[in-house]
Amino acid sequence: MIRLPFDVVVSELTRVLEALGFSAARARQSATLFAETHLDGVASHGLNRFPRFVRQIKAGIVRPDAEPVCVARFGSWEQWDGQLGPGNLNATAATDRAIALARDHGLGLVALRNTNHWMRGGTYGWQAARAGMAFIGWTNTTPNMPPWGTLTSKLGNTPVIIAIPNGEQPVVLDAAMSQFSYGKMERLELRGEQLPMPGGYDEAGHLTTDPGAILKTMRPLPTGYWKGAGLSFVFDVLGAVLSSGQTTHEIGKQSDEFGLSQVFLAFDVGRPAGSDAVARVVSAVVDDLHTAVPAADGSAARYPGEQVLNTRAENLRLGIPVDDAVWTTIRGL
Amino acid sequence: MIRLPFDVVVSELTRVLEALGFSAARARQSATLFAETHLDGVASHGLNRFPRFVRQIKAGIVRPDAEPVCVARFGSWEQWDGQLGPGNLNATAATDRAIALARDHGLGLVALRNTNHWMRGGTYGWQAARAGMAFIGWTNTTPNMPPWGTLTSKLGNTPVIIAIPNGEQPVVLDAAMSQFSYGKMERLELRGEQLPMPGGYDEAGHLTTDPGAILKTMRPLPTGYWKGAGLSFVFDVLGAVLSSGQTTHEIGKQSDEFGLSQVFLAFDVGRPAGSDAVARVVSAVVDDLHTAVPAADGSAARYPGEQVLNTRAENLRLGIPVDDAVWTTIRGL
Repeated sequence: MIRLPFDVVVSELTRVLEALGFSAARARQSATLFAETHLDGVASHGLNRFPRFVRQIKAGIVRPDAEPVCVARFGSWEQWDGQLGPGNLNATAATDRAIALARDHGLGLVALRNTNHWMRGGTYGWQAARAGMAFIGWTNTTPNMPPWGTLTSKLGNTPVIIAIPNGEQPVVLDAAMSQFSYGKMERLELRGEQLPMPGGYDEAGHLTTDPGAILKTMRPLPTGYWKGAGLSFVFDVLGAVLSSGQTTHEIGKQSDEFGLSQVFLAFDVGRPAGSDAVARVVSAVVDDLHTAVPAADGSAARYPGEQVLNTRAENLRLGIPVDDAVWTTIRGL
Repeated sequence: MIRLPFDVVVSELTRVLEALGFSAARARQSATLFAETHLDGVASHGLNRFPRFVRQIKAGIVRPDAEPVCVARFGSWEQWDGQLGPGNLNATAATDRAIALARDHGLGLVALRNTNHWMRGGTYGWQAARAGMAFIGWTNTTPNMPPWGTLTSKLGNTPVIIAIPNGEQPVVLDAAMSQFSYGKMERLELRGEQLPMPGGYDEAGHLTTDPGAILKTMRPLPTGYWKGAGLSFVFDVLGAVLSSGQTTHEIGKQSDEFGLSQVFLAFDVGRPAGSDAVARVVSAVVDDLHTAVPAADGSAARYPGEQVLNTRAENLRLGIPVDDAVWTTIRGL
């Protein structure tokens, strides 16, 4: 593992993307999003994911110069077509547009179809919170999780993002509807570690803590069993309906994961009494949360997003920790 | 257990509520909501809950004649004050208003503060779906669930409702952020049954399937461990911010559960291509879901709300199944 300055990472990724046909500005923007994700500790959707992103560009699945276009508008709700552009650039644009709609209407909804994997979903929660907005967003995925009680992957693991602004310390929840994300299972498998609790089924149909066994069966446990399965189902259908886009079922008929449906919902929560009032509510609840007594095998209570700022600060100071092999691969792209 | 005709149940509950000071129309409306909830198989928030509702009315916590009033409007988002009126009547009015806003703006948000327990949350999902609307809603509660890794109840179990219209067979998810709802645990305890999997901690701090032990410690497992805890946290804060209402932390300082904050978000999903287009998406995904192969210890996959229609039809035919003691209590109110 090596530690790399943020700017070095951005420059290197920008170089690769420009060579693939991105404009200079869009290459830098997409590279910055990958670098920020890794900076925040989410390597699986940072540099570790970048080589796969490049493969999808080379395969023609991700189109470097495609930009999202507004295709319909219904008051404070717009439908956009992502035209299979880079998922993180499309999602950033959609979030910006939802924020603008919320400024006009109190809340704003952008439903984006025909887009690509947005990488770290939390990115758009942080973006909205920086603009003083609360945010709810989700994406569907290719089928990678069986409905509760079954063997067949019909559902996606459906990351759901909910953010509330609070100055430099927003609340940002970024949770997939599988108990453990594929990124986390891949990371633990690489390190030869077990999950802290059963996360899915092995080939014999038994619950297991072995991430490799679950990656083999593609039978992760939904978050909260039938509840995460149900949430995945409704978010998929609602996102497809709002965007007039594809469902997980349709995405699963393709050769690869593309043409996703995503939802970006922004709330201008400063309207009733200003952003200071919002911050007072958040601070009071966070302060109370921190007084919860840790269980014998537990630790202090943390709110969603709390750890990110520490990780970010440490990685800005020491450099972004990148796996040697990943960096070598990227240098060779 | 006795089976009672729907109309008999409505009449009896109406009688009780009129005697408590409800107008005839409001008594019948609230009674019908309780009866429909029980009809749909949710006894815990149907007749089983009714005596407690009556106690809260007698204690002055629920005010029979209080109606919600609009206190602020920001485009497609309105804030309402529930004035501590009956929770189910307030929530029905809020849902109706969110639907009306969605007709005007594509989507509509009513954030309701200072209200009471809405009983079965799914009621408002069914209501929105009947009007052709998709719906996301949630309520906060008194503290009844510890943050992950801790012993102290700081979070609520936060029912979340998501609905998608589909003619007579809408999708309606109604899920609390504890793995098992308090209603379910109480029901199983009465029957002397165990939970199908660990649902919380006993007094020794061990995970247990004994619902009675969990009701004693008030340490239910969050849905998906840290994930359900995180979702509960963000929904509580977001609901309080949107409604300028109380957080779970503030509700917990009171002598009883009242003055809740609730969110009602309606989407006019028929706008892009009509309700038939929405129904086609839902049907295709449901049909695909039903082809999932059951696991050895599993059963056929079901979508959220699928079982309700069968239960409703059976109870309309045979009568609503009511616990003898519950019915005796209600007759004596």
